[in-house]
Amino acid sequence: MTFIDQLKGGSIPDPVAAAARAEGVDPSHLAELVKEGRAIVCLNKVRKGCKPLAIGEGLRTKVNANIGTSRDRNDPAEEIVKLKAALDAGADTMMDLSTGGDLAEIRRAIMAQCPVPIGTVPIYQAIADTTGPAGKDMFELDAETIFKVIEQQAREGVDFMTVHCGITQNGVEMLESQRRVLGVVSRGGSFTVAWMRKHGQENPLYAQYDRLIEICREYEVVLSLGDGFRPGAGADATDRGQIHELMTLGDLTLRAREAGVQVMVEGPGHVPMDQIEANMLLQKRLCHNAPFYVLGPLVTDVAPGYDHITSAIGGAMAARAGADILCYVTPAEHLGLPDAKDVREGVIASRIAAHAADVANGVPGAAEWDLKMSRARAALDWEGQIALSMDPVRARELRSRAMPENEDVCTMCGEFCAVKVYNEGCSHEVKSPGYPPIDVVRGEK
Amino acid sequence: MTFIDQLKGGSIPDPVAAAARAEGVDPSHLAELVKEGRAIVCLNKVRKGCKPLAIGEGLRTKVNANIGTSRDRNDPAEEIVKLKAALDAGADTMMDLSTGGDLAEIRRAIMAQCPVPIGTVPIYQAIADTTGPAGKDMFELDAETIFKVIEQQAREGVDFMTVHCGITQNGVEMLESQRRVLGVVSRGGSFTVAWMRKHGQENPLYAQYDRLIEICREYEVVLSLGDGFRPGAGADATDRGQIHELMTLGDLTLRAREAGVQVMVEGPGHVPMDQIEANMLLQKRLCHNAPFYVLGPLVTDVAPGYDHITSAIGGAMAARAGADILCYVTPAEHLGLPDAKDVREGVIASRIAAHAADVANGVPGAAEWDLKMSRARAALDWEGQIALSMDPVRARELRSRAMPENEDVCTMCGEFCAVKVYNEGCSHEVKSPGYPPIDVVRGEK
Repeated sequence: MTFIDQLKGGSIPDPVAAAARAEGVDPSHLAELVKEGRAIVCLNKVRKGCKPLAIGEGLRTKVNANIGTSRDRNDPAEEIVKLKAALDAGADTMMDLSTGGDLAEIRRAIMAQCPVPIGTVPIYQAIADTTGPAGKDMFELDAETIFKVIEQQAREGVDFMTVHCGITQNGVEMLESQRRVLGVVSRGGSFTVAWMRKHGQENPLYAQYDRLIEICREYEVVLSLGDGFRPGAGADATDRGQIHELMTLGDLTLRAREAGVQVMVEGPGHVPMDQIEANMLLQKRLCHNAPFYVLGPLVTDVAPGYDHITSAIGGAMAARAGADILCYVTPAEHLGLPDAKDVREGVIASRIAAHAADVANGVPGAAEWDLKMSRARAALDWEGQIALSMDPVRARELRSRAMPENEDVCTMCGEFCAVKVYNEGCSHEVKSPGYPPIDVVRGEK
Repeated sequence: MTFIDQLKGGSIPDPVAAAARAEGVDPSHLAELVKEGRAIVCLNKVRKGCKPLAIGEGLRTKVNANIGTSRDRNDPAEEIVKLKAALDAGADTMMDLSTGGDLAEIRRAIMAQCPVPIGTVPIYQAIADTTGPAGKDMFELDAETIFKVIEQQAREGVDFMTVHCGITQNGVEMLESQRRVLGVVSRGGSFTVAWMRKHGQENPLYAQYDRLIEICREYEVVLSLGDGFRPGAGADATDRGQIHELMTLGDLTLRAREAGVQVMVEGPGHVPMDQIEANMLLQKRLCHNAPFYVLGPLVTDVAPGYDHITSAIGGAMAARAGADILCYVTPAEHLGLPDAKDVREGVIASRIAAHAADVANGVPGAAEWDLKMSRARAALDWEGQIALSMDPVRARELRSRAMPENEDVCTMCGEFCAVKVYNEGCSHEVKSPGYPPIDVVRGEK
């Protein structure tokens, strides 16, 4: 019995109730959302040491951080450092996207130290299993290997999996006939298209979708339906390749949901600001209100080195318009594999985007956090401001870098502090609200 | 004869024509905008070594960077380092907001090395002139001192001045009766309110506005009508204190315009995402389409240390909805005076916001830049990508930090590069577009 099966039967599974409490919503409300597929609760049935997490309509916008080795940079210990950096910065979920080294070993090491849901892209390991011990070309990969890997990862507790099931022969035709500027930029998507070209066959993850559903049913794995044709250039956004795949994902969403399997749908990518709201609407309509998991969107192509910022702009707008979880983008995007510092910057930038949208959308607790900070500012309560900061370590570091002569104020204005000058003649007294312990403010993690 | 006078008389002043050429628009088009007050051309009549700059409707969104000493951190040489950092990062205008040391000397040193329009907040020097040599309390400042300073700065070539003319007795009443969370956070605004309280008098910059107009006429100084009541907390955004001042600024805009003086209007501040578009509309309506110069807006209050990001989100949305120039915010905002590194980060974040909006708004050249970058990515042309980056130094640094074994790709995916895998089986050849010299791409500066 999956969560959806139990909910349809009228009972609320414990992980759903626990996820609701962590979210501060009524369990019966979340139960209704999950039953209808408007939210998911992420927790593999056999996963240990992980709290269930709810993602979806009206809930706090979540942030995912990707880590993982590549063939050029393959040090498992470094990935654990990145894991800790991401968790410390407040990531809600983690994906292990390793493509170099012993992938199963690296994944196990990461999962053992990860108290939040973990996701993978199983085709990476399927490719590694084909090219590694067997020494074959990556395109010799077969469907059996893919499903063997998916089953193995599910059995080991992976909570959600990105699978590019929406790439079809028809979709490839749609995509190629329009001559994109920047083809396919999803690793899984690009490989799948190349494999289909070479073999002249349909995508196995589409052709044998029911087999995938069966595995997910057994382990309560959330299907994260990947967007292999997400635009990698603003010029390619919202084109027929992308929208055709999204329609296929809508069909697959219904099929999984009817089989009692939870689904979220992945989305773009590089999208100019004027197209973000339309993209959110399209996904919610075409995919039957499934939670939307977006990468970026990056609102311009020209800022490598700062794509955590281009993504924060797009991510905030996306979350405001309906996206439910933002995949972080680090400053290293488009240039190389991120290091731990990049990971931290990426998570914080995405959390800012998610929280800004939550404030605007009236998600319970979001505006209250801002209000507490503003009251601490009004009272020139510096310890309060630091404790209430999204990144208290960074805030303290910048504050301490140059302390003012008078510790009431800061070095920006010194005695000319606007707040101080205004308060002194103010008709009502300004008092610090005090501040709650930091864990309460940042939400249960 | 001011620019507006000449335009009304049917001739286009040279600086207006030059600004139009730099912008890539027809001089007669810009002439019409300036005549109607929908755009300004910034260049003090006596200013040397500075190119005129157009700001306004349909033009490229500009970025301003603030530098300047405070009493706690007062090293003129450091401000020159910050000036160079801001210019190098691509700031379109600079403001010297010094409040510590010999303000006139610091301003002259900055202006001598600044090829872009320079702005000031004259009341800072008026306060310093009162408290410094005369040794008086800052509230002993009188109207004569203010106008003497304004005249002096105009005569020395300051191109635009922030003056908090819209603060009135009525406005203060509006503001105070609603009990804001975070009172007044503008330094000039806070001082003006406190001065008015102590003296029981009207704001001299409002009461003697015609005197101000006369000085601006003589030197072609652009009036930047300050928003003394800009919200410093999301909870205070779009309140009656703010909107009352904006209405007053609308009245003052018309009065200046009729007298042939160019005006831009300053705006918030801390504004939740759901209120940004309305704020832009209100300003354009209430201030008769005057160019809008916004600080931020910061879309959340809780991210000190990262307010260049909270501002990039709000700034992009503001520029998309009509803002014409973004005042940068640095990572040090709310915590202390920025250093040169903060200045660079702040300018780049604002430029990203401005450019993202320009792409969405169809500003000529903006989407073309993105398209060139995407073509360089499709061709795996790494030198092209770096040259086309908003910050080529940073892009090269991150790329070089860890070079892949195969220099075609990057360390993110290595041989598993999506673009490479896709291109190899692609039916059409992907060619690099080559790339123009960087100055052409980044716009004339």
